[in-house]
Amino acid sequence: MMDKELFSNEPDISKVKITDPFWQNRMEVVRTKVLPYEWEALNDRIEGATTSHAVANFKIAADLTKNGLVGKTGKGTTRTEGAEAVDTGEGGFKGFVFQDSDIAKWLEAIAYTLTWHKDAEIEKTADEVIDLVCAAQQEDGYLDTFYIINGIDKKWTNLKDNHELYCFGHMLEAAVAYYEATGKDKLLNAMKKYADYIDRVFGPESDKKHGYPGHEEAELALVKLYRVTKEKKYLNLAKYFIDARGTEPNYFAEECKERGVKVPSKEDLAYHQAHKPVREQDVAIGHAVRAVYLYTAMADVAKITEDEELFAACERLWKDITTRQMYITGSIGSSHVGEAFTFDYDLPNDAVYGETCAAIGLAFFAKRMLGIRPKREYADVLEKVLYNGILSGISLDGTRFFYVNPLEVVPYKDKMDARFRHVKTERQKWFGCACCPPNIARIMADLGSYLSSVNGAAFYTHLPVGSETESEIAGTNVKVIVTGNYPWDGDIEVKIDPEKETAFTYGIRIPSWCDRFEAEFNGEKLNSDLKDGYLTISRTFKKGDVLKLTLSMEAKVIEADSKVRADYGKVAVMRGPVVYCLEEADNGKDLHLLSIDTDTVFGVRKESELGGIDALYADGYREITRDDDRLYRPAGAREYEHPELKFVPYYAWNNRGEGEMRVWVQRR
Amino acid sequence: MMDKELFSNEPDISKVKITDPFWQNRMEVVRTKVLPYEWEALNDRIEGATTSHAVANFKIAADLTKNGLVGKTGKGTTRTEGAEAVDTGEGGFKGFVFQDSDIAKWLEAIAYTLTWHKDAEIEKTADEVIDLVCAAQQEDGYLDTFYIINGIDKKWTNLKDNHELYCFGHMLEAAVAYYEATGKDKLLNAMKKYADYIDRVFGPESDKKHGYPGHEEAELALVKLYRVTKEKKYLNLAKYFIDARGTEPNYFAEECKERGVKVPSKEDLAYHQAHKPVREQDVAIGHAVRAVYLYTAMADVAKITEDEELFAACERLWKDITTRQMYITGSIGSSHVGEAFTFDYDLPNDAVYGETCAAIGLAFFAKRMLGIRPKREYADVLEKVLYNGILSGISLDGTRFFYVNPLEVVPYKDKMDARFRHVKTERQKWFGCACCPPNIARIMADLGSYLSSVNGAAFYTHLPVGSETESEIAGTNVKVIVTGNYPWDGDIEVKIDPEKETAFTYGIRIPSWCDRFEAEFNGEKLNSDLKDGYLTISRTFKKGDVLKLTLSMEAKVIEADSKVRADYGKVAVMRGPVVYCLEEADNGKDLHLLSIDTDTVFGVRKESELGGIDALYADGYREITRDDDRLYRPAGAREYEHPELKFVPYYAWNNRGEGEMRVWVQRR
Repeated sequence: MMDKELFSNEPDISKVKITDPFWQNRMEVVRTKVLPYEWEALNDRIEGATTSHAVANFKIAADLTKNGLVGKTGKGTTRTEGAEAVDTGEGGFKGFVFQDSDIAKWLEAIAYTLTWHKDAEIEKTADEVIDLVCAAQQEDGYLDTFYIINGIDKKWTNLKDNHELYCFGHMLEAAVAYYEATGKDKLLNAMKKYADYIDRVFGPESDKKHGYPGHEEAELALVKLYRVTKEKKYLNLAKYFIDARGTEPNYFAEECKERGVKVPSKEDLAYHQAHKPVREQDVAIGHAVRAVYLYTAMADVAKITEDEELFAACERLWKDITTRQMYITGSIGSSHVGEAFTFDYDLPNDAVYGETCAAIGLAFFAKRMLGIRPKREYADVLEKVLYNGILSGISLDGTRFFYVNPLEVVPYKDKMDARFRHVKTERQKWFGCACCPPNIARIMADLGSYLSSVNGAAFYTHLPVGSETESEIAGTNVKVIVTGNYPWDGDIEVKIDPEKETAFTYGIRIPSWCDRFEAEFNGEKLNSDLKDGYLTISRTFKKGDVLKLTLSMEAKVIEADSKVRADYGKVAVMRGPVVYCLEEADNGKDLHLLSIDTDTVFGVRKESELGGIDALYADGYREITRDDDRLYRPAGAREYEHPELKFVPYYAWNNRGEGEMRVWVQRR
Repeated sequence: MMDKELFSNEPDISKVKITDPFWQNRMEVVRTKVLPYEWEALNDRIEGATTSHAVANFKIAADLTKNGLVGKTGKGTTRTEGAEAVDTGEGGFKGFVFQDSDIAKWLEAIAYTLTWHKDAEIEKTADEVIDLVCAAQQEDGYLDTFYIINGIDKKWTNLKDNHELYCFGHMLEAAVAYYEATGKDKLLNAMKKYADYIDRVFGPESDKKHGYPGHEEAELALVKLYRVTKEKKYLNLAKYFIDARGTEPNYFAEECKERGVKVPSKEDLAYHQAHKPVREQDVAIGHAVRAVYLYTAMADVAKITEDEELFAACERLWKDITTRQMYITGSIGSSHVGEAFTFDYDLPNDAVYGETCAAIGLAFFAKRMLGIRPKREYADVLEKVLYNGILSGISLDGTRFFYVNPLEVVPYKDKMDARFRHVKTERQKWFGCACCPPNIARIMADLGSYLSSVNGAAFYTHLPVGSETESEIAGTNVKVIVTGNYPWDGDIEVKIDPEKETAFTYGIRIPSWCDRFEAEFNGEKLNSDLKDGYLTISRTFKKGDVLKLTLSMEAKVIEADSKVRADYGKVAVMRGPVVYCLEEADNGKDLHLLSIDTDTVFGVRKESELGGIDALYADGYREITRDDDRLYRPAGAREYEHPELKFVPYYAWNNRGEGEMRVWVQRR
């Protein structure tokens, strides 16, 4: 049942300052390396990187708009099916139908950085980009360069595949973020105009189209627009998109009939989460990014509208993902076929997909669930995916990216194997479909909004990341200052500083990986009763109140549910929220020959390499092979060497050149 | 170095009678069930089976030929690229470009059965099929229904993809076999005419096309034509096709240029084994069936022409396959991508391809290598693939077939996994691309020719299959009669019956899986010195000579080379040449939870089920799982139940309904 008291908005992003030794550095990398690098990529100025053409598309669209040539050049292509990259030649649209969203995500990330690092120069660039984007907008509000360039008469004819509402959503998110960061409303107004137009086109009324996004994203963005404008029609449109999805007659099927193309199969509809109404869905299915973007919006709407049925669907889908379809790193979407969820316990480590964007989407979903109800499991997954499956998507220096995040790599094998074409053994400079790099940038730049939430008259610290957060609790402005050296150390200090003495509840999550903890408040030991996994203090707080928390941080040998066949007979190593791996750079080739005992005791050494890590060392085994010319031979007793194995954080792998890596190690 | 003394032809097929309890039954199934069933399939009379249209194509082609309408109907399609199924509508060609070969393989199999079971009725049907085939032949000898129906002006324009020379080869094999079985030469003469025409079109001369088959097969068939006609030009044409392959300028590239289509990549050429001259090839690469058909012909030509360089290439390729790219069942070609060889030690058990036809082709290759030099390793592989990877392709009742031969199946998983679409969890009634069923039929019907060879003045028994073989050795007609109950029992009796006292060598292979054997000749114990793995007796033989051989037959726990990552930490069970597996029908679900010790002792029980088998029983372990809602959890000590595990022969799996199966079992 919904706990209405817990409903509230997230703390205002402008009031969070990250001071964390682990994340501050990475956020600086995003600001000083990733975003400038991406800007170069979006402008096609990086040698050897795949062409983006995203800025060029806006320039072309703006020129057509300015010159009144939209729909009149005869240059457009009618080829608007599917999601393959398009190239209509010099002066034409290039890239994917969703190329605009790369600009939007970059802008959104820039906006977040401006909240914690003012920078007039980058703000000027962003303003210019916004001018360019707005210059491409049509009189009625429409704004999608693919159709503006390629044939505006075809707009809204292929919602299933062609990402118009997805691009809209991303640009809207950027507009809201930029407005909140700078107070500038040019893009916000443009996107409001576009939203108003979309609201005139789509809806339950008989004179409107009954469609909804092929790639979900507009829904969660419309909720943001509602939050910033308080105009209910945007919330209603988001709710409409959610509830229309998968109803009969199926819009995507109707749309295909209208275009005279093959009606989508049940499987294709499931790829779009449109095989049945979302409230009836129990199983996370189809394209993983689409799915978690949808679930994020469902949680948003459930929260604001206090919709218990919708929240129940979110809970079912959450449980399905996190107990049956999630890698130990928090990555989701096992299969490159459709970049999709597959089925229970199907989590191959080598043939994996685990798209970075899907991991990011899972963080979105977790954040929304925490916004509704602070429950440890949501925060555990949020933490897992942030420190592992998301962070693995970017190199330490911020210039190389993984789209697919393997948990096991043998470079020569993965390169030779046509079945593994999607798996890259090294991070890439850029991608033709470059959704992931700007997505990493925006979530990292926005990290402050993921750490805590105010739910009713309570403040909850979900992740003990070093930070200073100001929020209003029970009518009082309260500063919460978290310090520590997480995730390497378990000692965390929280200062709770209300402007004036005020009664409220403070809660901090005790992670489920933590066996023992000690806590004292103003020097007095606290008892360790938890509520939903949170240590909570309800009292009248005053300036200078201090909570000290010590989490036990032993490295642990982890096993998977026995139904995960890919992990059977294997174990992984974690310390705190950090998943570790073996790399060839430390342990030589043929990592599959290595094994460890389940009761292995690990040594921890702080090392400066890989951006500063706690490396783990342990006595392990390496089988002494007795291979000869026989491919098959009678099995004999095995013999072992006893090397000291070195484990490094998974997120940091492949920062020392190409080599073998594996998370799941043979269990002795 | 070539041992010239060992060169000779295989024993005449008409003089081998199979009396083996294991194989006789299966050959009868082929004769009484498989071939009549296939005949129905080729005529599209099996409900629920995929359409063949193979007979219909010949009828249509024959009608066009009779009515002088070939190339004049305007009905043809110019779509002759690629190897997808074609359907040009009512009265048009349907099926794959190689559909004709299904008829050819059926005819060839019928011919073999007629050598050991005269049947006037089936011979009449075969004669009628031959009449039909010949009625479709063109004036110049050309005979390929795809082009006769679809556009004869396009013939020989796409050797790379369109299988004309492959279809020619199969029909030629059928013609030779039918002639040898019945003495009837109608089809042989027709195919000679076609061969003569091909010889006029292709060759090294400047006025001829310098092409060669896209799918190898014509080469080995031309060798057969040479053997039956003694006309050297056919041998020369086979040799030409072999030696032209992969030379520069690359014919397939030139041919593509001529058609104005994309020039094949290096990878595409390797798919066709045309990336470099065959004599320079060291690695079995590309489409597995094509590869082994090529190597078979290379060995044929090497033998007849005493070509040491070509034989050395065969030996290299043999070694590459059998020590680095072969499943324990003898299946080859790991990947569904191109039905192809992949790379060293890449042998996934679930995502496997292992096409039945490729296993059959490996048997062809092994037989040719034995014809050159009796060496145990060739016969070991021949035996392995016959008793496992080939036999698994057909159900015990002869009406269901595997195209892909998995070594590990979990039905719900394989069905839900889009990456495993090629893996069927049950044998199928028929296939759109139905190369495998008639291929199994023809090799099983022809089994007699695989058991032994006469090499110079020596007779070698490669496989101790119950049989009576007559051959001429050192000028004398010698009967060799093998009896026993192989592969279940190791007691083998061989009567060597020369028409008159004659000095020669008799050799019988001692399989490499056999640790100990005992042999006596006419009651006297023989010493156990082996030559190339054969126990040989060189003496003057006389009527009534008897060799008694006892092979040790303990079931063994087998491990793979440690570089086979898919098998690491696992073991398989073999007894004699037979690979065993665990099936759900005997051992319940979740076979991955089962394990055995490497020193497991197996009980053997003769059972009547599954057509009569020796089942193996052993004490094993089943992990008692402690799964809860956590997908990942701290690893604990494992606990086990101790069930008696039952292993059944791999070839017999999936004859008791659908269920899990695995060959490679967790090793404790």
